Amino acid sequence: MPASLSPQRAVVLLSGGVDSSTTLAVARAAGYECYALTFRYGQRHAAEVEAARAVARRLDAARHVILDIDLRQFGGSALTDDLAVPKDRPPAAIGQGIPVTYVPARNTIFLAFALAWAEVLSAGDVFIGVNALDYSGYPDCRPEYIAAFQHLAGLATRAGVEGQPLRIHTPLIKLTKREIIEKGLALGLDYALTVSCYDPAPGGEACGRCDACRLRLRGFAEAGVADPGRYLAHPVDA
Amino acid sequence: MPASLSPQRAVVLLSGGVDSSTTLAVARAAGYECYALTFRYGQRHAAEVEAARAVARRLDAARHVILDIDLRQFGGSALTDDLAVPKDRPPAAIGQGIPVTYVPARNTIFLAFALAWAEVLSAGDVFIGVNALDYSGYPDCRPEYIAAFQHLAGLATRAGVEGQPLRIHTPLIKLTKREIIEKGLALGLDYALTVSCYDPAPGGEACGRCDACRLRLRGFAEAGVADPGRYLAHPVDA
Repeated sequence: MPASLSPQRAVVLLSGGVDSSTTLAVARAAGYECYALTFRYGQRHAAEVEAARAVARRLDAARHVILDIDLRQFGGSALTDDLAVPKDRPPAAIGQGIPVTYVPARNTIFLAFALAWAEVLSAGDVFIGVNALDYSGYPDCRPEYIAAFQHLAGLATRAGVEGQPLRIHTPLIKLTKREIIEKGLALGLDYALTVSCYDPAPGGEACGRCDACRLRLRGFAEAGVADPGRYLAHPVDA
Repeated sequence: MPASLSPQRAVVLLSGGVDSSTTLAVARAAGYECYALTFRYGQRHAAEVEAARAVARRLDAARHVILDIDLRQFGGSALTDDLAVPKDRPPAAIGQGIPVTYVPARNTIFLAFALAWAEVLSAGDVFIGVNALDYSGYPDCRPEYIAAFQHLAGLATRAGVEGQPLRIHTPLIKLTKREIIEKGLALGLDYALTVSCYDPAPGGEACGRCDACRLRLRGFAEAGVADPGRYLAHPVDA
């Protein structure tokens, strides 16, 4: 089979949460051969890495690489330090300002590794599930940030220099959490496999109270669908 | 002492070779409190990491972090795969095209981690010893690449969003290897501590024949100074 008839390869950043899992489903539905990339970066729980593994397997990723990077050596975030994860914030407060759960330069690090793998695979496409609406206030989820990375990618690599710059796909960037969930459900994605919580229990149950849980629960509620995720207790009204 | 009177912090990427060690000497001479960052990325030898450790200690780095990142999971380079390192290439051939020793997206990955650490440290400055003249043909050593990363950094982080974008310093970018060595010597840098070779012997001796060795030897020869590095055999005429 000539190379032009083989499926195009894409690197898909996959955390195991709602957004990245939906992004993988979108890339697969678009016909890409998907190479899923997950990071174990010193977060306090492994539940989301296990979720990523289950989602990659279910969605037929051609390969799934889990990279260890130790951001704890830098500190600076509730997700990697021993600071408390904020709980029970009113929905209006989520997305105002940059939360303490912010991980410095996280998407820049993730996209840099995706760029490296894409170059090795001769893949021209990277998918990332960033979202500028329900985005919890992270600066590296904004469209202008993604555009700047795509420009950088065109200058950074052999492929870019030789005229095949990387395309960075952000299929969720303008969607609400409700729309993201509806899109995933339409593609047959089983959200029971996904984990969103910033602070899950040792058994992997979500807390239902951190910003990530509250945004997820509100999204499912607005979509009129029960969240199939496992929660520690009856979640508060999101 | 008010914060404004304490020395400014800078993150300095330090591989342990001539260029990055000179860059650390330049940053220190400019009065920065230097935070040195070295990567162990699956290269076949640890000699350059040990060199980085010695240089950071000698040049009074406030802290030296050595991060493990496993680029071997992606493959794609002579430095991380089992391909042969080119030897004895004529000087005119070095810098023509992109060599097989190219590591995909390496500087993008390194700068992404530097950006993360800078944000945690509230450091507004990053130093990287890229060089656009004797640069062995890497696309991510060019001035336009660095400018693109600086633009990205301004959009990627809390500091950038709040009006303190990162400055990326490339003090060597327009210097020849001879000028780099002369600058380091003028600052008192002991190049015996540094390791440049792509393929050192088990005892740490440089091969004298790879592109990195040949560029280094030529630089010392042009500066009229004996290279204090340890070589496996009498080096060929560079």
